[in-house]
Formats: sequence, C-alpha cells, structure tokens
Amino acid sequence: MPANEFFFAERMRNLSGSAIRDIFKYMGRPGLISFAGGNPAAFALPEDQVADLSYRLLREMGKQLLQYGPTEGYLPLREALPAYIEKTFGAKADADGILITTGSMQGLDLLLRALVNPGDAVLTESPAFLGALQAMTAAEARIIPVRSDDTGIDTDHLEEMMRLHSPKLLYLIPTFQNPTGRTLSLERRKKVAELAARYGVVVAEDDPYHELRYEGSHLPSVMSYDEQGRVVLLGSFSKVISPGLRVGFMAGDASLIRKCAILKQCTDVHTPNLNQAIIHQYLTGALLDEHIRAILPPYAAMMRLMLRELENIPEIKGFTRPEGGLFIFARLADGLEAVPLFKRAVDRGLAFVPGEYFYAEGGHKNTLRLNFSGTDPDGIARGMEILRGCLKDSH
Amino acid sequence: MPANEFFFAERMRNLSGSAIRDIFKYMGRPGLISFAGGNPAAFALPEDQVADLSYRLLREMGKQLLQYGPTEGYLPLREALPAYIEKTFGAKADADGILITTGSMQGLDLLLRALVNPGDAVLTESPAFLGALQAMTAAEARIIPVRSDDTGIDTDHLEEMMRLHSPKLLYLIPTFQNPTGRTLSLERRKKVAELAARYGVVVAEDDPYHELRYEGSHLPSVMSYDEQGRVVLLGSFSKVISPGLRVGFMAGDASLIRKCAILKQCTDVHTPNLNQAIIHQYLTGALLDEHIRAILPPYAAMMRLMLRELENIPEIKGFTRPEGGLFIFARLADGLEAVPLFKRAVDRGLAFVPGEYFYAEGGHKNTLRLNFSGTDPDGIARGMEILRGCLKDSH
Repeated sequence: MPANEFFFAERMRNLSGSAIRDIFKYMGRPGLISFAGGNPAAFALPEDQVADLSYRLLREMGKQLLQYGPTEGYLPLREALPAYIEKTFGAKADADGILITTGSMQGLDLLLRALVNPGDAVLTESPAFLGALQAMTAAEARIIPVRSDDTGIDTDHLEEMMRLHSPKLLYLIPTFQNPTGRTLSLERRKKVAELAARYGVVVAEDDPYHELRYEGSHLPSVMSYDEQGRVVLLGSFSKVISPGLRVGFMAGDASLIRKCAILKQCTDVHTPNLNQAIIHQYLTGALLDEHIRAILPPYAAMMRLMLRELENIPEIKGFTRPEGGLFIFARLADGLEAVPLFKRAVDRGLAFVPGEYFYAEGGHKNTLRLNFSGTDPDGIARGMEILRGCLKDSH
Repeated sequence: MPANEFFFAERMRNLSGSAIRDIFKYMGRPGLISFAGGNPAAFALPEDQVADLSYRLLREMGKQLLQYGPTEGYLPLREALPAYIEKTFGAKADADGILITTGSMQGLDLLLRALVNPGDAVLTESPAFLGALQAMTAAEARIIPVRSDDTGIDTDHLEEMMRLHSPKLLYLIPTFQNPTGRTLSLERRKKVAELAARYGVVVAEDDPYHELRYEGSHLPSVMSYDEQGRVVLLGSFSKVISPGLRVGFMAGDASLIRKCAILKQCTDVHTPNLNQAIIHQYLTGALLDEHIRAILPPYAAMMRLMLRELENIPEIKGFTRPEGGLFIFARLADGLEAVPLFKRAVDRGLAFVPGEYFYAEGGHKNTLRLNFSGTDPDGIARGMEILRGCLKDSH
C-alpha cells in the first residue's frame, strides 16, 4: 500500500469534503462582517469575572481541580443542576440522571453512539442544526427530515414518520431554533412528549438558546411533559456564559445516562474540572441571572435592528420573527439563490450561511441564515447594506 | 414499550457491567491507600502556577479564550508542538498534522472511529491499558492481543498477527507501559515502524509517561523511524502537568489527522481554549522543563521504595523493574489469585488493580498492577505492609 493512503471506516464516506467546508474557508478573511456563525457577541463574554473565579478556585482547591475527576462530572455542579433545570426548563431531573458533557454537542454524539446502529432511522426537524446533521452522518444514521413551520416541528408529520420508520431518536431544538429562530408551541411540546412515549422514541431536546428570550414568555421544555423517561435534555452554557469553556450537560433517564457515561469514559474521560467549577460558581450565586439580565437588552436591540433592515430589502420575500436566540431565517424571491449571493457578498465583505445546507433532503436554494450576534450594531447596519446592494445588482 | 427500556446499539453489548466496575466501587472508601489509580501525585500538580497563568491569560485575551475556537486547536499551541515533539520524542511533525485533543484518550477514540468498521481487527499489547481496551470495544473492533515481554511487544508475534488478521490499527504504549511499566527497546521501535509500513497498519503510539524517566536514557519514538506516515503519536499533558485540564494532542499524517478533526467537530467541537492556552505557556517558557525537573526525584524515590518493599514479600514471585512511569506489575506465586487478594486488601485499607483485567484474552489471575503515585512514601510503606500481611494470611 502506498504511503498516505488509508482505508477509512464507512462512516467517513459522507462526512468529508462537503460544500459547507468550502464556504467556511472564506470566513477567516480580515474585516469580513459575519452573519455566518453562532458565536456569542464579544460583550456577552464575562472574561474579568471568569479570571477572578479561576484564580480563586485554583487557589482554594487547585489540587482537586487539576487531578482526574469523575466521568459523570464535578459533583457540586451535578448537584446544582436539578434546581437550575427546574427553574429554567420547568422539568424534574436528579443528579443520578445527569452527565456533564464537553459542550452539548457531545451529549448528542453520546446518545447517537449509545442508541444507533448503522442504518437506524433518526428524525430531525427540517431545516436542522448543521452540527447535528454531521453527528448523525458520523453515526451512519438514516436521517429522516420532518416538516416544520412557524410553530416548530409538524407533529402530524412527526407521527407519520415515527410510524413509518421506527426511529431510535428524534433530535430537535425547541426554542429559537438553529437555523430558523422558531419556537415550538406549547401544544406541540406536549404532543412531542406524548408521541415519544407512545412510539418508544428517545427525544434529544437541545435547548441552548432558551434563556436568550427577548420577548414573550418562557415555555416549559418538552421534558417537562415526559412521564416515561424518553426525553433527554441537552443543556449548554455556551450561549449564556462562554462557548470556549466547553461545558454542557445531559439530563434524562438514569439508565440511559449511565450508558452515555460509559461511552464518555472511552472518549474524553471527563470534562475539565476547572471549567465545570467555574460554571458551578455561576449557578450557585446570582451571577448567571445577573449576567443574562445584562446581555438580553443589547441582543434584543441587535435582533430588532436586523429585522427592521430586512423589511427594506425588496428581494427578501419572507423571514422569521424570533422572540429570542441568535438567528433569523430568510427567503429570497423566486429565481434567486443563496450560494451565488454568498459569493458576491463575501467579495464585498459580508458572510452568511446559505440555507440549503440545513436541509438533509436538499433544495431550498433561496433561503439563508442570518446571525446577529457575531458583530455589533454598526456591523449589522453595514452588513445589511452590503446584502441589499448584492441583491439589487442581481436584477 | 414500557418506560425505562431502551434498545441500545450493538456496541453497548460488551461495554457495560464489567467486573472492573465492581472493583472501582470500592475505591471511594475514606482512608483507603490506593495503589489502584494512575493519578499524578498531589505534589506534582502545579496549582499556584496554573492559578497565576489562568488569571493573566484571561485578563490579557479573555474575549478570545471564552469564544469558540478552531476544532484543530489553539493556534499558538499547535505551532509550538512541532519543536516540543522533536525535542521530546525525536520525531518530526508539522502543525498541519497536529490536532489538539481533550486528553490523549480522545485521540485513540477518533482514530478508531476514523478507521475501524465493526469487526475490523485491532492489535494491542498483552497486557494492555484498560481504557484503550474499552475504547476498542466501543468501536466494535476485534481485539487481537500481541505477546509482550521485558522489552515490550514481541515483534515476531506482531508480524504474524499483522499477516494473519490484516488489522486497521496497532495500539501501544512504548514507554513505561500501563500496566507493566516496561519500555519497548530501540530495535523493536524500528521494527514496529517497519512492519507498520510493510503491512499498511496505522500505529497509535501513546506515550504519556515518556518524560517521567527516573533512570536510563530517553529513547526516540516509534514515530521517529516512520517514513510512511503510518504512526500517529498520541501525546498528553495529564501525567506531567495536570489530568484535570484534559489537554492532549495527536500528530501524524495530515490527511489522517484531518479526518479525525472532522469527527472531533461532531463530538466536542474543540478542546477548551483556556486549558490549551495554559499548556501553551508551559511549552513556550522553561516552565515545563523546570516542573518536570522538580517532580522526577520524589517520583523516583517512591518507585524505588515500592520496588524494595516488593523484594520482601515472599509470595510475590516476580515484578517489573521500570525505569520510569507510574506502574509496577507483579506476579504472585502459583495458586494465589489477585481478585480474592484484592477483596481482603480492601477490607484492610489497600486497593490495587488485579492484573487479569488488562488481558483481553483473560487468564493471568495471579498478576496485579501497583501504582506508586497515588499516595505518599508513608502510604507506600503502610500499603505494602497491608499487602504483605494479606499474602501471609493466605497460606
């Protein structure tokens, strides 16, 4: 066998060289205004607080934090999470059914590995979070998209797909979804929990944007309606404290969580202790509440600015009107396509993500995802001006 | 389907409820002297230094560290690693062929997922690192043990197994191996690289104990003899700085590393930035060298103390004499078994790991692994006294 040739596993076949990777190559350009990522805004990252907390934690309990920790997670954090979950998501959890993860993506990865054999069906919203689609591909799952509309996943279509495909897992983001910004209605939340119980399908309820609500009232999680232990809540502190710290959690049925912990032991052994202890500090005092209270108004202003600007672009025929989160999803007039638009926009200094990448089934070439937290209000205004110009020139 | 019943994936079938888990349940007992773990000694964890570094890094570049980072790793760390790898392992690497991992176990997990389909053969030393055996089981690999002796893996047997089984991967710890403490000889290092090239087998060379050498001279890595890009070096800072920070790396052929990076993106997205930046500080100044110089003499003294004590236990018929690392492997007189001995020892306040768990093929019930870094010299003396007493009473 010649050097540099490898026989890769089957799962790699569909994972490499996707078009989206080409798109992301453009992203590093200096001066580029980015509506493309899902990064928290710089103002929302509490670096001085984290500096003080790290220093104090390492001085007070450095030996413990630098040593190996339990795979299940730093015990004080696991024990603080049930109260946080009840308060935030309206759901009951206990420490036995909680696993701390290195970001919430790891929770999905562990669930896929615990449940899915190659070829098993996995359901997800259409359009869906790109990272989740990639993780499902890595798990060699058969991805079944389920229609969604302004109030989230279509539960009639969901039931039909459950009956037809006997899926192992349903993945969804119920609140301020990525990429659409849409929120699953209360009735549909109940219905999803009921269908999961009836058809024996595990639900991965990924809810990282939940606390970034700028209007309307908080909705209870799908998990809060689950009486059968079918729903696993994937939580993340990436959007409300820091993605760079990589701390998330999964909460659900203890026997299922235990299997995920066994798999975690074979991958990163445990999530770094210092990072978990920092998050624990945010949960025990009033720090997290205060921090969220401080970041909501500027985020709300940025979202409203982008929504206003969208109304003034005649080639944009529709867009979602989220009540929170970080994303708006827009639709171009018929005949216009987002990939060529992206290329023109990048040349003029603006990036976004063409919407077609979020559809496992393809199509939807006239859609785009716009993020408003990766720049500042001035950047939003200038970026929207570039978008308007590019669309005008496309006539 | 009743609540709390799940249809798990095939890979979970052999992963759960192993006997070793029962053993580890005993470990938490207060006051227990532990020869069972692989933890660095408390004195070897530099908590004040890490406190100062964290504080300074977060003050100076906190916005960047708290934001998302690249999957491949924090760029300054990736760029510092080739010089570190050349100096420490005598091997060439470049930043393109380096992926930062959340501990070096993640490197093995990513390699297994990139290369191994269910049923594919994977070779490993016998006895082998338990965590690696678990990761191979999670990958549904067919584990093929290869004989090893005082100078490491038997390369004649290795060649036979490569011919017979066409394995995708060989996993080994060449220096101060876990569980034996043995080191692969120079000639065999060359031979492993040569066989890997000839048979097209990827070698996962896991070398976390390399810098913990108390006597003899450093040997170049297997990777340093590799001209075909078949060897992937798995590096870790867990044993020389801190396991709780969870920072390791993999270095090898760029096309193979790229596939691992794609998989990493679907699991923890990236290793936490702060943790990587702390390790980077250790690599750029003289900090790491100074720290290692400080911890070697007490580790050496602890190893020698345990070796001396072993000579005074008549029921112990043989044991390895490592030149570094954290483990000694011992063999009891015929007719004695380590699992019942473990149970008696735990009742008297001492834990170790029965050796049979490290043998994929079973057997070897009269072996045990002893770690000397989980306690202090006094604890070593008291623990060996308990061991001596338990063995005496077994007549």
